Amino acid sequence: MAAFANPRARGQALRQLRRQLSPEHICTDEQAMRTASLDGARITHMPEALIRPAGDADIATVLRLANKHRVPITTRGAGSATTGATTPIRGGWVLDLSAWDDIRIDAVSGYAHVGAGAVNAKVNEAAERKGWFYPPDPSSKNYCTIGGNIACNAGGLRAAKYGVTRDYVVALEGFLPTGEPVKWGLPLKKFVSGYNLRDLWTGSEGTLGVITRATLRLIPKPETRTTFLAAYVDEARALRTVKSILKARMQPAILEFLDRQTVSCFLKKHAAAGTLTSLPFRIENIDTPPAMLLLELDGDAAQVRKLQREVKPLLSEKSVWLKHARSTEEAEALWNVRRKSSQAMFQLGDTKLNEDIVVPLDSQLPLLRYTLELKKKTGLATPTFGHAADGNFHVHVMFDWDDAGQRARAKESIDLIMHKVVELGGAITGEHGIGLAKSPYLRLQHTEAEIRAMQAIKDALDPNGILNPGKIFEPFDMWEQPRERSWRFRWDH
Amino acid sequence: MAAFANPRARGQALRQLRRQLSPEHICTDEQAMRTASLDGARITHMPEALIRPAGDADIATVLRLANKHRVPITTRGAGSATTGATTPIRGGWVLDLSAWDDIRIDAVSGYAHVGAGAVNAKVNEAAERKGWFYPPDPSSKNYCTIGGNIACNAGGLRAAKYGVTRDYVVALEGFLPTGEPVKWGLPLKKFVSGYNLRDLWTGSEGTLGVITRATLRLIPKPETRTTFLAAYVDEARALRTVKSILKARMQPAILEFLDRQTVSCFLKKHAAAGTLTSLPFRIENIDTPPAMLLLELDGDAAQVRKLQREVKPLLSEKSVWLKHARSTEEAEALWNVRRKSSQAMFQLGDTKLNEDIVVPLDSQLPLLRYTLELKKKTGLATPTFGHAADGNFHVHVMFDWDDAGQRARAKESIDLIMHKVVELGGAITGEHGIGLAKSPYLRLQHTEAEIRAMQAIKDALDPNGILNPGKIFEPFDMWEQPRERSWRFRWDH
Repeated sequence: MAAFANPRARGQALRQLRRQLSPEHICTDEQAMRTASLDGARITHMPEALIRPAGDADIATVLRLANKHRVPITTRGAGSATTGATTPIRGGWVLDLSAWDDIRIDAVSGYAHVGAGAVNAKVNEAAERKGWFYPPDPSSKNYCTIGGNIACNAGGLRAAKYGVTRDYVVALEGFLPTGEPVKWGLPLKKFVSGYNLRDLWTGSEGTLGVITRATLRLIPKPETRTTFLAAYVDEARALRTVKSILKARMQPAILEFLDRQTVSCFLKKHAAAGTLTSLPFRIENIDTPPAMLLLELDGDAAQVRKLQREVKPLLSEKSVWLKHARSTEEAEALWNVRRKSSQAMFQLGDTKLNEDIVVPLDSQLPLLRYTLELKKKTGLATPTFGHAADGNFHVHVMFDWDDAGQRARAKESIDLIMHKVVELGGAITGEHGIGLAKSPYLRLQHTEAEIRAMQAIKDALDPNGILNPGKIFEPFDMWEQPRERSWRFRWDH
Repeated sequence: MAAFANPRARGQALRQLRRQLSPEHICTDEQAMRTASLDGARITHMPEALIRPAGDADIATVLRLANKHRVPITTRGAGSATTGATTPIRGGWVLDLSAWDDIRIDAVSGYAHVGAGAVNAKVNEAAERKGWFYPPDPSSKNYCTIGGNIACNAGGLRAAKYGVTRDYVVALEGFLPTGEPVKWGLPLKKFVSGYNLRDLWTGSEGTLGVITRATLRLIPKPETRTTFLAAYVDEARALRTVKSILKARMQPAILEFLDRQTVSCFLKKHAAAGTLTSLPFRIENIDTPPAMLLLELDGDAAQVRKLQREVKPLLSEKSVWLKHARSTEEAEALWNVRRKSSQAMFQLGDTKLNEDIVVPLDSQLPLLRYTLELKKKTGLATPTFGHAADGNFHVHVMFDWDDAGQRARAKESIDLIMHKVVELGGAITGEHGIGLAKSPYLRLQHTEAEIRAMQAIKDALDPNGILNPGKIFEPFDMWEQPRERSWRFRWDH
């Protein structure tokens, strides 16, 4: 791979760019640079410019110049990635597509035609207005963009029944690193002409091309849904319940698991605020919190009635109690346990590492047991929740960043979790991607031959290596990198 | 790309292979060579050996030697491809994986673990025994193999509701052209580590790797299904009915369209056999046959009851008549129109070209009108049926191969259809792939930049170009190639 341009050459390239693009589309002020320097992983590196392209011609120009002069290009949407995938770690130019947020629903064929910057939840709102539904729902859905969702093949809560982003991408438009426009697929339900670069781009974290537009498949909006929350003495009983539900081929739309550590965070926050009695359930002793399952069924009314009759005895069999929401408000109250748990974890440390690992069904309990062992071993909390029906658990490690001892133990915890996950036949990432944060573990998951094949593709499509350099393949030590801890994202609360 | 070995070097390579593999796995007899020389497209080319590998080690050996000595490798299953994708057009060795047909159902997680040679229908039978269902159902399902299904991303009748093969491939195992074993994905519902070569291999027609095993996703077996057959005065009324059904977001499992030419073939065959009165419907005058829609709903009993109430008025509104099967036997009788039509077309010519094109919903009627124009213009019949809910039509051109005039007009017809399809915003292939037959039209569908990107991937993964050479990218003139018309496939009838 050719070396990147030196600072002087980069300056010249930027001056050339300024001659070819309207000046208001090129930002180099401090605020813009800081915004473009990081994502949810808070690993920062300053770019040399933030570019807000007005149209296809701008992107072609940017890429042609960048490719010619060897300037790194990092494409970003909202910057809500959790892995540092959007951090311009080699500097260069950041291409911000968040303004490319147009959404058009084809209500007859069931497609959403969207710009890369369209926000996930907005796509679904537009779809629902026409009786359709866009299932992928990462927890960042209110601010994350479809371009980013495609770049990391985002999942969400409904994946076991409805699949992930990849399952809804029908066609992509965008650019090769050379600035040439390409379309992968068409708005058609079948298309097998030539190689499937649509799915190769999906999940490639902006390293193979720049995605500008997508056609997404929609499904008919489920007529109704119903929500249950169940409490279990321990993780084992909750996870055995998961297995019995899956064995019965029930296909809940959502089946979320929360371990006792997670539920404890939620309860303690309410205890501190004096709002325990406002909860839709009573907990005898918050020092012995239960594990929980949150289950949602959806479909047409008759189907949901039938399913809820079948699922209730399975949910309750091993439970301490089972709540069934009788209204949307009651459902919201049950959902709060899941929605508020993640933030509640910060009482355990100022830094949270969220590992989106996946394990096979039979490894769910061994994994949860391991998180408890780890907690004992390192003294750091390991609250875990996740999408139990698809085995995608979010194992969190909580610690104080400024405590060097805790930091060392946090690093050790992540190392051990990654090794354990692979040993259990699992995946080191289910919906976040590799980015910078998981790059040291890529070789745990893949053989050298597999990685060589991946890198051969990278070199073939991006011979100058300008697109999102430093990601996925080069092991990155995030522990040696300063974290931008003071930056407030607009979704921080 | 390096040149292939000359005949002498190939002979040496084969002798080396004989020293490294058990002799019974290498066939060079006339019968084996003929079997390995063609697929459903009947374009033949003799290989130098047919290899039936006993295990992974054999495949690694074959590929290492072939890659070292530049011997073309063509992988095959049943050989039911319709495009010549399985014809070893550059000779070399044919790798026959049809014996790799093991099937194991994981009834808790809902996976089928299968060998590449597993027959599609057998996978579904095994799944159904455990309450699960494998939706992709190419019409060749009783003999085509999963390896071939993945190689061309096979579709089938249920794609509009259930998707195509790609939507069910969870993980692949196989080999790089160098003989190195690789796994793309794991039997997990989420996996986003590294590049998605699973989906790149899917649909790449055996040109990027050798697929040996797959994990397929299953869905709960639909509880019940119900079948309708409706007749319409012309194609326009049938296709407007399709649109009104899709607009109502009905999601039939199957919605097959048959044009008047197709129905005419079916009726005339019955008339000739004197069995017209045995049909489950009465046709006043077989010289003015109707167009038809065959519709199947599936789901749980309550859902199907609800859907059939809703769909009946839509189906019947523009119809001449509507039949609703009251039993499995009645459904089978209705299905016969679709099942027997394809063979019945041979009364119109000894050669049938089956073009699996796809068009957007609004282009369905313009396409059908064009097939009638074409028929008038060339004098060759263009009977068309297809999967109307996903816009995937099988436009057939019928002619006598030995009639040079007809052959020339058939070639012209195909050229015109391909141009028309792309002009209508469609795809030149929806479920068969490019192979040899569609290779002259690849550049209609894709820009030069897109094709260069595809070929860069090919060169990166298979630098010596040994895997299935001559396919997809090199325009092939099938009209200049002798067709093996006397060969009887075991599925011919």
